[in-house]
Amino acid sequence: MKEIKIFAPATIANISCGFDVLGCCLDAIGDEMIVRKSPDKGVKITKITGATLPYETKNNVAGVAALALLDALNFEIDYGFEIEIYKNIKPGSGIGSSAASAAGSVFAINQLLGKPFSKIELVAFAREGERLACGSPIADNVAPAIFGGFTLVKSTNPLKIIELPTIDELYTTIIHPQIEIKTADSRAILPNDIPLKKAVKQWANVGALIHALHTNNASLFADSLTDYIVEPYRSKLIPDFGLVKESALKAGALGCGISGSGPSIFTFSKNKQVTENVAIEISKTYSKNKIPFHVYVSKINLEGIKIINS
Amino acid sequence: MKEIKIFAPATIANISCGFDVLGCCLDAIGDEMIVRKSPDKGVKITKITGATLPYETKNNVAGVAALALLDALNFEIDYGFEIEIYKNIKPGSGIGSSAASAAGSVFAINQLLGKPFSKIELVAFAREGERLACGSPIADNVAPAIFGGFTLVKSTNPLKIIELPTIDELYTTIIHPQIEIKTADSRAILPNDIPLKKAVKQWANVGALIHALHTNNASLFADSLTDYIVEPYRSKLIPDFGLVKESALKAGALGCGISGSGPSIFTFSKNKQVTENVAIEISKTYSKNKIPFHVYVSKINLEGIKIINS
Repeated sequence: MKEIKIFAPATIANISCGFDVLGCCLDAIGDEMIVRKSPDKGVKITKITGATLPYETKNNVAGVAALALLDALNFEIDYGFEIEIYKNIKPGSGIGSSAASAAGSVFAINQLLGKPFSKIELVAFAREGERLACGSPIADNVAPAIFGGFTLVKSTNPLKIIELPTIDELYTTIIHPQIEIKTADSRAILPNDIPLKKAVKQWANVGALIHALHTNNASLFADSLTDYIVEPYRSKLIPDFGLVKESALKAGALGCGISGSGPSIFTFSKNKQVTENVAIEISKTYSKNKIPFHVYVSKINLEGIKIINS
Repeated sequence: MKEIKIFAPATIANISCGFDVLGCCLDAIGDEMIVRKSPDKGVKITKITGATLPYETKNNVAGVAALALLDALNFEIDYGFEIEIYKNIKPGSGIGSSAASAAGSVFAINQLLGKPFSKIELVAFAREGERLACGSPIADNVAPAIFGGFTLVKSTNPLKIIELPTIDELYTTIIHPQIEIKTADSRAILPNDIPLKKAVKQWANVGALIHALHTNNASLFADSLTDYIVEPYRSKLIPDFGLVKESALKAGALGCGISGSGPSIFTFSKNKQVTENVAIEISKTYSKNKIPFHVYVSKINLEGIKIINS
C-alpha cells in the first residue's frame, strides 16, 4: 500500500458529566486526509484545504503526531510520508478538529506501515498533536476518533482507554455558533477547586451514564447528562446556550451540553425523526440572534476513522 | 404472617472512588432481627442484645425507619409492631451498623404487611434511620442492604438507586480496629472544596469501576479502587491504615480502602484462598500495634436482607 485516503471524524468530548474523560465519535462530520509514502524521509504536509493551518511539520498537529509515531520506530524506515488534509471541521469549533487531524495522521501511517501499532499506541501518538494544539496531551477527543463509539479515558499517565457500549439508534445534533472561544480561555474560566458536594453528584452521574450505556437505557442516559461542574462556567462564553438547551430538551432531546470547550453545543436524541425535530427547533432558536451558525446531524460512529480507499 | 426473623447484613459504603454513592452488601456479617405484629398500634423496640442502643422508638434507627414506613400508610393499620434487635455489627464500626437496623426494620415490616412497598421505597424509609444516626439521610449503606450486591446512589433527591452487577468469586476481608471514630468527626475532617484535577481522576475511576462490574473485569476493578479525595484525609484517623493496605495488596488483594467513615478497613479479593491469605497477613500486620481488632471474611451478598424464618 502506497497511499491511503481516510475519513477522520469529529468527536464530542466531556459529554456533560464526564469532563476530561468521556468522548464519543461522530459519523457525518469529519475531515478527509490522504497520506502517501514518499522517497524523502520524515513527514511533509503537502496540502491543506478548508482551513488556514501551518504547513511546517512541527507546527501542525498531524505532523507532530506523525513524528511521535516515527520516533517510536526510531525513524528506522527508509522512506517518509506526505500528508494532505481536507478540513471540514473548523478549527476552534469544539468538536475535535485538531484531534481528527492528529488521529487521522497516525491511523493512516500505521496502515501504510502494515499496522505495527495498536489503537492505544495510536492514541498516545495522536495526543502529542493535542499537546501542540492546546498545551496538554489530552486524549478525550483522539480516543473516540481512533476507537469509535463512546470512550472513557481511565487515566492519562499511564494512558488507559476504555471502549464503552452505546445506546441503540442514538443521534446527535450539533450547533456551531460562528464565534471564537480560545481553549486557553475556556480552561482559564474554570476554578481550580470545586465543591465536594457537587463533585459527588458529578461522579454519581458518570457512574449512571456508564451503567446506562451498558444496559442500553436511554432514559437513564438522559438523566445522567447533567454537568454540575464545568457547564455553569463555560456556558457564559456561549451566547444563548440556555435557550438552545431549553428548546432542544423541549423538542425531545435526551440531553444537551457543551461539546469540548465549545462553542459547539451538542444534543443527543433517540431516533432520526426526533433528531431532525431538534435540529429544526435549535436552528429556529439560534436564528433569533445575529450570530451565524451551522447545524450538523450525525449518528454515533462506532468504527472511528474510516478508510475511504487505499 | 405474624412474625418474621431476618438477617440484616453489614455493608461497605464508598468503595474507594465512590464516596457517598457506591456500596456493597456482605454475607457473613450482620445482625438478626425479629419483628412481630402486636395488638398495640405503633412501633416498640422490645429487645436489644449485643450493643447499648436506645429503646425509645424515636431515638432508635430501626424505630424511626419503621415510623417513616407507617407514616406513608398514614398509620392506617389497626395493629403495631414489636422489634427485637440482635446486634452483631458494632455501632460505629463503619460497616453499616445503623443501616442494617434501619433497613432490616422496614424490610421485615413490609413482609408482615404483604409487601406493599418496593425496594426503593424501603430505602427511602430506611434512610430516615440514617438521618437519626448521622444527621443526613444517606443511602449508600441502606441501598446495598436492601438491594444486595453493588449499588450506586444515582441521586438522593429524588432518590434513585442503580443495581449493579458484580465480579465473579468476589470476597471481602474487613479489619475492624476497636477504636471509635465519630461520623461527625470523619465528616468534619473533609474539605468543602477539592481540586478539580483530582475530581476528574476520581470520576474516571467511578466510570471504570462501573465498567469493570459490567464486564466482570477483576483487574480493571482493582485498578479503579483508588480514592484521590477522601482517603488521604480519613486515613489519618485510622492507626496503621497504610501498613494494612500495603500488606493486603502484597497478599493479593484487588484493593483496600476505608469502609464508610471508618475505622473498618475493607479489602477485596478474587477467591477464597487469596482472601484467607489477606486475612492472615493484615491480622499479622495489625497485631504489631496494641489496638485490639476483629477480622471478618465475607462473600459479596447478592440478595441483601435474608428471611431466616417466618
